[in-house]
Amino acid sequence: MDDSLVRENIGLMPYLVAASQILGVAVLAITGTWLSQYRGGFSWDGPEQFNVHPLCMVLGMVFLCGDALLVFRVFRHETKKATKILHGVLHILALIISLVGIIAVFQYHKKKNINDMYSLHSWLGITTFTLYILQWILGFVMFFLPGVGFAYKNRFKPLHVFLGLSLLLSTIATCLLGLTEKMLDDYSKLPAEGVLVNSLGLLLVAFGLVIAYIVTREEWRRPPLPEEQALSIDFRTLTQGESPTEP
Amino acid sequence: MDDSLVRENIGLMPYLVAASQILGVAVLAITGTWLSQYRGGFSWDGPEQFNVHPLCMVLGMVFLCGDALLVFRVFRHETKKATKILHGVLHILALIISLVGIIAVFQYHKKKNINDMYSLHSWLGITTFTLYILQWILGFVMFFLPGVGFAYKNRFKPLHVFLGLSLLLSTIATCLLGLTEKMLDDYSKLPAEGVLVNSLGLLLVAFGLVIAYIVTREEWRRPPLPEEQALSIDFRTLTQGESPTEP
Repeated sequence: MDDSLVRENIGLMPYLVAASQILGVAVLAITGTWLSQYRGGFSWDGPEQFNVHPLCMVLGMVFLCGDALLVFRVFRHETKKATKILHGVLHILALIISLVGIIAVFQYHKKKNINDMYSLHSWLGITTFTLYILQWILGFVMFFLPGVGFAYKNRFKPLHVFLGLSLLLSTIATCLLGLTEKMLDDYSKLPAEGVLVNSLGLLLVAFGLVIAYIVTREEWRRPPLPEEQALSIDFRTLTQGESPTEP
Repeated sequence: MDDSLVRENIGLMPYLVAASQILGVAVLAITGTWLSQYRGGFSWDGPEQFNVHPLCMVLGMVFLCGDALLVFRVFRHETKKATKILHGVLHILALIISLVGIIAVFQYHKKKNINDMYSLHSWLGITTFTLYILQWILGFVMFFLPGVGFAYKNRFKPLHVFLGLSLLLSTIATCLLGLTEKMLDDYSKLPAEGVLVNSLGLLLVAFGLVIAYIVTREEWRRPPLPEEQALSIDFRTLTQGESPTEP
């Protein structure tokens, strides 16, 4: 019955979690620096409304969503309910902040008479955000509303985890495309702004990969608490199948 | 001892493998169509030398590398040795073809007096390719040369699998950046070429995600053959740890 304690082998996980947070804060700091030093800073009504877009998307869809994926690993000995609530709160913040970011760019395009939705950045971004909304609704229904059977939750969970990680990675790809679009005049002279933006792109990729590594290590999954484990063993004898551990 | 047969539950895997191959062929066909219809086709000495670059990178680093990741899942009842050789052959082809693609773009830049390595596409691409070479050498030493202990192979394997998948995904992100760079004149009028290139970008992402899903499903791992299983049980009793199944 102490199986979970015996198997608890988190090795490098704390260091990688620390690395992910350093990368995340660095990404936010560089995004803010880039937009204020080279792009005129922030406003909602002026021409700087555009700059709200990258800042909100990096904060909401990259940093907060990335951290939401980690909570089941990091708070591994808290109750499942508390951990799920934290996961939900982070995703509520991410959703609100990224909606603000999306409204900012559409309003800016309208004011400036720029076409919407022509670039690969916009196509990939809107696809990712639409799937994020779908993932949000499905996750809420399956894991927060009462009445969904344990077996259904358990079958849906691997798909929820895979989709969550995929959305983080395609969000990061979308950010890189946005950075490239903004840089294209004078890019080939590699000005200081180019170096800053390229570095930001590499850090975004590093953030995504560190989160992906932490979340895909089988042996770093949240172990069930003793009271959950009793339930899990009951369940396992019923189904002879998967054990209901956490992503 | 028949554990592997009992646990064999490959469900949707054949359909997803078929989907990945359809996506892969579609990606190659659209890349070829784009470069020949809109960008003047292929040559090594003329100004079309550039076009060799995207075609070789998509064929070598995306399609062949993607399929190399799948061989352990797809040829699940062949011997491990035969499957490893196929994995190695696909990576030899991928390496040669992508080297040709990289030489093409540097030679083209030199002839046209275009700066090298200024864009995020080039920074991410060269980082990915350098890590691919490293992964190639480490994989060869650890899994093909004789004399490396089973315990070392087993500890290195999860990292090899994670790095392989990460490299495929960052290669795909690099492709999207390259497509965006090529499109930036007149992009906002969304010409037919823009629609083609954006669709290619979304298909590249879909290819990567389908491969990622197949490769990360725990229950679709290659089961050990009976003779390997005997070895694996000996090993498990020695280490009381991980079971040496395949990625």
